[in-house]
Amino acid sequence: MRILIINPNTTASMTATIADSARRVAGRETEIVAVTSSMGPVSIEGYYDEVFAIPGLLKEIAAGEKEGIDAVVIACFDDTGLDAARALADVPVIGICEAAVSATAFIAQKFTVVTTMERSRLPLEHLVHRYGMSSRCKVRAADIPVLSLEDPNSNARDRLRSEIALALKEDRAEAIVLGCAGMADLTAELRLEFGVPVVDGVAAAVKQAESLVTLGLSTAKRGAYATPILKPYRGMLEVFEPGRLSSS
Amino acid sequence: MRILIINPNTTASMTATIADSARRVAGRETEIVAVTSSMGPVSIEGYYDEVFAIPGLLKEIAAGEKEGIDAVVIACFDDTGLDAARALADVPVIGICEAAVSATAFIAQKFTVVTTMERSRLPLEHLVHRYGMSSRCKVRAADIPVLSLEDPNSNARDRLRSEIALALKEDRAEAIVLGCAGMADLTAELRLEFGVPVVDGVAAAVKQAESLVTLGLSTAKRGAYATPILKPYRGMLEVFEPGRLSSS
Amino acid sequence: MRILIINPNTTASMTATIADSARRVAGRETEIVAVTSSMGPVSIEGYYDEVFAIPGLLKEIAAGEKEGIDAVVIACFDDTGLDAARALADVPVIGICEAAVSATAFIAQKFTVVTTMERSRLPLEHLVHRYGMSSRCKVRAADIPVLSLEDPNSNARDRLRSEIALALKEDRAEAIVLGCAGMADLTAELRLEFGVPVVDGVAAAVKQAESLVTLGLSTAKRGAYATPILKPYRGMLEVFEPGRLSSS
Amino acid sequence: MRILIINPNTTASMTATIADSARRVAGRETEIVAVTSSMGPVSIEGYYDEVFAIPGLLKEIAAGEKEGIDAVVIACFDDTGLDAARALADVPVIGICEAAVSATAFIAQKFTVVTTMERSRLPLEHLVHRYGMSSRCKVRAADIPVLSLEDPNSNARDRLRSEIALALKEDRAEAIVLGCAGMADLTAELRLEFGVPVVDGVAAAVKQAESLVTLGLSTAKRGAYATPILKPYRGMLEVFEPGRLSSS
Amino acid sequence: MRILIINPNTTASMTATIADSARRVAGRETEIVAVTSSMGPVSIEGYYDEVFAIPGLLKEIAAGEKEGIDAVVIACFDDTGLDAARALADVPVIGICEAAVSATAFIAQKFTVVTTMERSRLPLEHLVHRYGMSSRCKVRAADIPVLSLEDPNSNARDRLRSEIALALKEDRAEAIVLGCAGMADLTAELRLEFGVPVVDGVAAAVKQAESLVTLGLSTAKRGAYATPILKPYRGMLEVFEPGRLSSS
Amino acid sequence: MRILIINPNTTASMTATIADSARRVAGRETEIVAVTSSMGPVSIEGYYDEVFAIPGLLKEIAAGEKEGIDAVVIACFDDTGLDAARALADVPVIGICEAAVSATAFIAQKFTVVTTMERSRLPLEHLVHRYGMSSRCKVRAADIPVLSLEDPNSNARDRLRSEIALALKEDRAEAIVLGCAGMADLTAELRLEFGVPVVDGVAAAVKQAESLVTLGLSTAKRGAYATPILKPYRGMLEVFEPGRLSSS
Repeated sequence: MRILIINPNTTASMTATIADSARRVAGRETEIVAVTSSMGPVSIEGYYDEVFAIPGLLKEIAAGEKEGIDAVVIACFDDTGLDAARALADVPVIGICEAAVSATAFIAQKFTVVTTMERSRLPLEHLVHRYGMSSRCKVRAADIPVLSLEDPNSNARDRLRSEIALALKEDRAEAIVLGCAGMADLTAELRLEFGVPVVDGVAAAVKQAESLVTLGLSTAKRGAYATPILKPYRGMLEVFEPGRLSSS
Repeated sequence: MRILIINPNTTASMTATIADSARRVAGRETEIVAVTSSMGPVSIEGYYDEVFAIPGLLKEIAAGEKEGIDAVVIACFDDTGLDAARALADVPVIGICEAAVSATAFIAQKFTVVTTMERSRLPLEHLVHRYGMSSRCKVRAADIPVLSLEDPNSNARDRLRSEIALALKEDRAEAIVLGCAGMADLTAELRLEFGVPVVDGVAAAVKQAESLVTLGLSTAKRGAYATPILKPYRGMLEVFEPGRLSSS
Repeated sequence: MRILIINPNTTASMTATIADSARRVAGRETEIVAVTSSMGPVSIEGYYDEVFAIPGLLKEIAAGEKEGIDAVVIACFDDTGLDAARALADVPVIGICEAAVSATAFIAQKFTVVTTMERSRLPLEHLVHRYGMSSRCKVRAADIPVLSLEDPNSNARDRLRSEIALALKEDRAEAIVLGCAGMADLTAELRLEFGVPVVDGVAAAVKQAESLVTLGLSTAKRGAYATPILKPYRGMLEVFEPGRLSSS
Repeated sequence: MRILIINPNTTASMTATIADSARRVAGRETEIVAVTSSMGPVSIEGYYDEVFAIPGLLKEIAAGEKEGIDAVVIACFDDTGLDAARALADVPVIGICEAAVSATAFIAQKFTVVTTMERSRLPLEHLVHRYGMSSRCKVRAADIPVLSLEDPNSNARDRLRSEIALALKEDRAEAIVLGCAGMADLTAELRLEFGVPVVDGVAAAVKQAESLVTLGLSTAKRGAYATPILKPYRGMLEVFEPGRLSSS
Repeated sequence: MRILIINPNTTASMTATIADSARRVAGRETEIVAVTSSMGPVSIEGYYDEVFAIPGLLKEIAAGEKEGIDAVVIACFDDTGLDAARALADVPVIGICEAAVSATAFIAQKFTVVTTMERSRLPLEHLVHRYGMSSRCKVRAADIPVLSLEDPNSNARDRLRSEIALALKEDRAEAIVLGCAGMADLTAELRLEFGVPVVDGVAAAVKQAESLVTLGLSTAKRGAYATPILKPYRGMLEVFEPGRLSSS
Repeated sequence: MRILIINPNTTASMTATIADSARRVAGRETEIVAVTSSMGPVSIEGYYDEVFAIPGLLKEIAAGEKEGIDAVVIACFDDTGLDAARALADVPVIGICEAAVSATAFIAQKFTVVTTMERSRLPLEHLVHRYGMSSRCKVRAADIPVLSLEDPNSNARDRLRSEIALALKEDRAEAIVLGCAGMADLTAELRLEFGVPVVDGVAAAVKQAESLVTLGLSTAKRGAYATPILKPYRGMLEVFEPGRLSSS
């Protein structure tokens, strides 16, 4: 089984963190193919960045399907482009927010997502609501830029810890979900430190992808995820014309 | 006052229909600037097309702001790119679905959106839910391609009429919302035919835009609509790097 | 276009404030007809007062329709008698709470209404819920009597400012809605002071009324807003018998 | 214990039906005081009639409290004036819709209210939602005028039966709530005919009133049900000025 | 009328408290039959204990029905085994949480349940949600073991008082519901102390049971409360085989 | 990794079907330990049966934990005893309804559970609501006894097919969830027949269990799933006293 994990931002060092987390939990017979998007923002912080991360993501999915991958994981916590990806792909597509929230629901009644920037808090609240968990899951922002997580001189990790402590106290969270793919390498130490389940979406999504493949399940094509209709696209985005992307 | 109305698909004939509808209701001192997006799909039917309609839309918004427009209307009923547009623009941005649903709520307790394609039904249901109207507003699809509305030989308008009749009977709809910008020219005759309020989102959005401008209100920048952060964008989408788009 | 704005309490000085706010935003071709109800309480603070403000309000609506007004605005933030008014009138009827909340939803994801008395807080929460905004909009009371807003010696305006400050901090409100018609004259200075959008329901309702009239939309009469059935009314309220009120 | 049951419409024959239903279930030590409102419409069908039924209702409550009644039942299924009545009265006030829906929730998971006129259906849906039962309780209208229930030559009762049959089949209702005080005398025969629990709101409200009195519970006065504030009322409604009504 | 009140834990001293509370409010013609379950935990604190309290409860219900009781009250605030009891019994079955919450809804818009242990808080929140009151009713735990309420040397009652004070202040609760059958004897003094309605579920349930019996209403058997199907049960629980329990 | 799958009814032939389904999808290094409960009903149809299936289930969990199993699957679609099991066990516990619904949410926006008996429909609707999926997932009953699925002479499978066809047409379901562990062996042929994803809860739960174990996640013990408190249990259920069960 080959699982394609796409980092939809264009920062390759974050892809390395993501791939490590994925490989730590992947099954023996699973091959993790981790790629960095070739176009778009270096980090995804809010609605605007998200838009420009999707074309590169979809390009990698089309390329992956041609090479026979079995499932796709989108490794950004705002589940960038998930709906369009499900319409495009024949294989199952997993967002790391959806996977993390879904897994945590099996082990806790109330939990909290701790993400990076305040401007990502409401978009994540919308996702949590859409995934049916708004009465069980709160979202907090530690007010740290995404890329500061990789900077050894920033205080990002300390702020993350403070926000987790608040979630445990004020939200009575029973478990914590790390709300950014770039936090994946912190999972083990935060579990130890806080003594509660800490969930990394990348790892959760890999297992979810393996599960769906083994179960023989993929996206239903009867509704809004029907394959895109062939039609002309104009201008610089012509290459993404349905049908053309896959065959390019 | 100048209102920029953007048809986010690349079919200029539909822009003409939209501009007509807009001008019919605009105030005497309002100038309607209607533009067709220069890149992306010729019609927006479902999640995939939507992605590729957004860059062209944002490009027109940035250009419009440089020229001093006062408000933006996005003239596609799935409110394509609304969140990113609100983050980008300093002036108010109005989606035609949001405007239509919001206006109808002042005149009816229960109403129904009749849209084109089945694959757009669930995305519109999500919008209606987000706008707080899911207990009052149903969504139906007449199963007609968007561009067939412009084809005099298609039976699209008959299918639309049949679906409206079903909405009045089965949903007990008190009013009908036309769920596609390309239906704007049918409003008057459908009102006459069915004897109930029929709402066109383009017209509703123009009045909403004028209202916000006169009220001196624009998008709050404290939360998720904060202006995009300056950062490098890579690849073919570099031109959309925050800051660069507006100054280009 | 003539818009009838009714102050449903019987305090004429408040009508003056309301009329000022309305005229500041009305279109050049709009005539604002502002009237004070001739019967009922001098201020509307809670459920009981509300009941006795409605007959006077409906009397003004009937009189206005005979004189050919094009739309009605009810200028009390609890949207006093809105449902009965919509059943009575053929022209569109706008409540200032509904208009304010609806307009704010176009410019902010999370916002807060700041009203006068604690006893009005829950009724407004019910309205906000009915308008579909309970997940986005909170309601706070500054604990100030309605008429104290007109008293230069009261500390009402200071308490209002304190509550707005709390809303911005604790609710993370992105915009503020002024929850009483009597606050309309404070809009401009509060915007300046707090640097966020501040929304006055009177102004919002005037623009909403103009919009509906221009759009050719009025209350759907198929459902619960069907015209009242002719039938005998007894006692001191006989004058309000359906049919009789309009022809008196 | 004395329970005041007020028929808020002005049709005395309906009060007789209501009083019979009340006395059939009242405890031995309960005295039922049934009164007909002295002002307002002869039947309450929709939002407009409701407004003009409330002053007469409140007058009877004030009179009743002066005479020492222990609880009030409002015998109209739209729970006319319930909030204002709770603010006015010191004793508990019960609406028959709230009582019926609340009692039925103890014996059935899914049930249906069958009411009279289509124009009352949505107002009752709002009540059911407010009482927390919208996921369990549907509302249907048999399309019969309220007073036709008293007319031996009308087919009102047959239409009621047909609608009950539909509720059992299409809604899978486990129990039926009669959605009009004027249906109270049909309860026994409908139970026999359909073999499911049939709930009459008048009877349910009497027992609820007795329960609250025995439990020593009455309306909390800390929130929106705080006693109305003393203030001038103007015009024909001056008699309802807070404080004055009770002492008149 | 005979009402069977079952204490589903096996602590007889708590049954005495419960019986006292029940008899204080029961009608003159009501006989209260209070029994202690003969099997299971000495107190019910959380999901696990609850499971083992249900068989003993159902055994008492079957025995009671053979002796002709008219209604059943389950006197534990987590409404232990309520669904199974309703399926088993032909007479109405009342849970004290459901009865308390339902009664309080008639006298307050916002209220708070104060229960014993933190581990019972979420299960009670689920109940409150199921009873349709989650937007009106909060749940707090005073962090006191159930049986400590009976221990004169514990500080349980002081902690209960502190939590009530917090509910009044932070939740703006208008009334308090005592969230444990073992608190029933505190009702009167807490009302006096806090000056707000304080509701005891045991008393509320007795009145609800009397009401349903007088109204001639019992559990609808068309849906999920249909009588259990005859079938073999194996092992130590064979005695509970449907049909066998009642006839044993 | 060893996963304990417990059939909580006492019909061993159904356990065989369940074990087959589980082994078909289990990872190479996963050992499936399938056991039949030794006490309780031969099938679980409704609330009453459910109660008596839980003690046997918990006994198997305690025994399994002593033998070092890594996760537990409860193989009955009403997720029998899930909350108590999570409180008891240190390892993760998975219900097949929760697992099926959760997995299907990754591949379809709207889907339908088709279960056996009408009396199980509402309990499953409650579960679906609790799992956050009530706006996306409907529940239908084919009106077939659980054990008839094993009877080659019954028409159970035909009725199941008819109900699936209705779900696809009337609910516009994009995928089907089989609502009974006894349907597991039908998955492959129903997929082929209907051409949509068909989800078996047993298989989904096995993969979910493997995922949680690999992710190092187990039930959070901070809230309502805290380990049961040591206390005396009385009567025939003494053996289930917390602490005693595990050590027996």
